[in-house]
Amino acid sequence: MSISSLIDHLQSKVSLSALEEEHIKYAFEEFQLHKKQRLLSAGDHSRYAYFITKGCMRSFFIDEKGVEHVSQLAFENHWISDLHGFLTSSSATHFIDSIEASTILRISLDRLEKLYLDVPAMERYFRQLFQSAYVATARRLDKSLTETADIRYAKLIKEQPDIAQRVPLIHIASYLGITPESLSRIRKVNR
Amino acid sequence: MSISSLIDHLQSKVSLSALEEEHIKYAFEEFQLHKKQRLLSAGDHSRYAYFITKGCMRSFFIDEKGVEHVSQLAFENHWISDLHGFLTSSSATHFIDSIEASTILRISLDRLEKLYLDVPAMERYFRQLFQSAYVATARRLDKSLTETADIRYAKLIKEQPDIAQRVPLIHIASYLGITPESLSRIRKVNR
Repeated sequence: MSISSLIDHLQSKVSLSALEEEHIKYAFEEFQLHKKQRLLSAGDHSRYAYFITKGCMRSFFIDEKGVEHVSQLAFENHWISDLHGFLTSSSATHFIDSIEASTILRISLDRLEKLYLDVPAMERYFRQLFQSAYVATARRLDKSLTETADIRYAKLIKEQPDIAQRVPLIHIASYLGITPESLSRIRKVNR
Repeated sequence: MSISSLIDHLQSKVSLSALEEEHIKYAFEEFQLHKKQRLLSAGDHSRYAYFITKGCMRSFFIDEKGVEHVSQLAFENHWISDLHGFLTSSSATHFIDSIEASTILRISLDRLEKLYLDVPAMERYFRQLFQSAYVATARRLDKSLTETADIRYAKLIKEQPDIAQRVPLIHIASYLGITPESLSRIRKVNR
C-alpha cells in the first residue's frame, strides 16, 4: 500500500500513535499517473498538495515569452504542489507533470488543517519540512547570483546522484537556469 | 518592555496560555544595537535567532570577488538570523548589521527546542512562518529569472512603503540584485 510509505516516512521524522496513523490514512487519497501526464495546469484551482510514493515529478511555469522554467524536481518521499495557490485556495501559477509513471497521495487544505488539530506531530513535521525548504531555497537564491552553472550542476548530482538517469536533460538545464547546450558542455568536461 | 511586543505578535497568530507566555518570556534575552552595528560576522558561531521589536536590520554575504549581496531586509516584528548556521550549530555564512538603532530579542537553539516542547503553539507559529517564508522565497527565485528590476522595485515599495525612507538605496539595490545607478534610474522614472 502506498499510504504505508507515507506513514514510514512520517515515522522516521516524528512519533505517531496508532490512532494518529488512522487519521493520516483517512486524510489522503491515492492515484496513479502515467509517464509525462499533466497533473495541474496554471490557472487551475490548486486544490491539493501531493506526496510522491513512487516516480518523479516536475513543476514549472511559463514566462511571458512562452519559455518554460522548471521550479522543482521531486522524487519518492517528497512533496510537490503549487503551494501558494494551495495555501490561499487560489489559481495555480505553475504546471505539474509526471516525468516517470508515478504513485501519488493527495490531500486537500481542509483535510490538512483538520490533520494539524487531530495530529499535533504534523505541525512539527511540516515545521521542519518548511524550515528545510526555506533554508535550501534561500541558499539557492543567494547562489544564483554568484555560483557558476558548473558548480550548481555538480551539487545537484551530489544531492541526487540518479537525477541524470531519471530526468531529461532539458528539464535539468531549465532547473539550473541554463540552456541544454551549456549543460551538455558541462557534462562532457566533467565526464 | 520589548518582550511584550513579541508576545502581542505571537498572540496575533496563535493562542497562548499565561503559563506559556511565561515560558516564552524566560527563553529570550533583550539587547540594544546602535545604528550600523555589527551583530554577526561570517565565520562566527551562529548561536542565536533574532526577533526585532524596534528598528531595522539587514543580512548579507560577500562573494569571492569581495562584493556584498543583501539577502534580507527586516523590520519590526520580523526575524533575522543566519538560519542555516543557527539550525546546524555551525559557522555563519552571512553578516548581520543594524541599519537603524534597534531593540532585539535573541533565543538560542537549545531554548527554542525546549520551547517547542513546553509551548506546542510555537510549532504552529513557526510552521506558518517558515511556510510563508518558503513560498515568498520560492516566488522570488522564480521571478528573478523573468521579472525586470522595475517590477521587483515596485512590488517591494508596495509591500514595505517606508523602505526607501529607512534603508539606504545601496542596500535596496543589492537586495534587488542591481546597481545603485540602475535603481536611481528606476526611481526617477517612477517618481
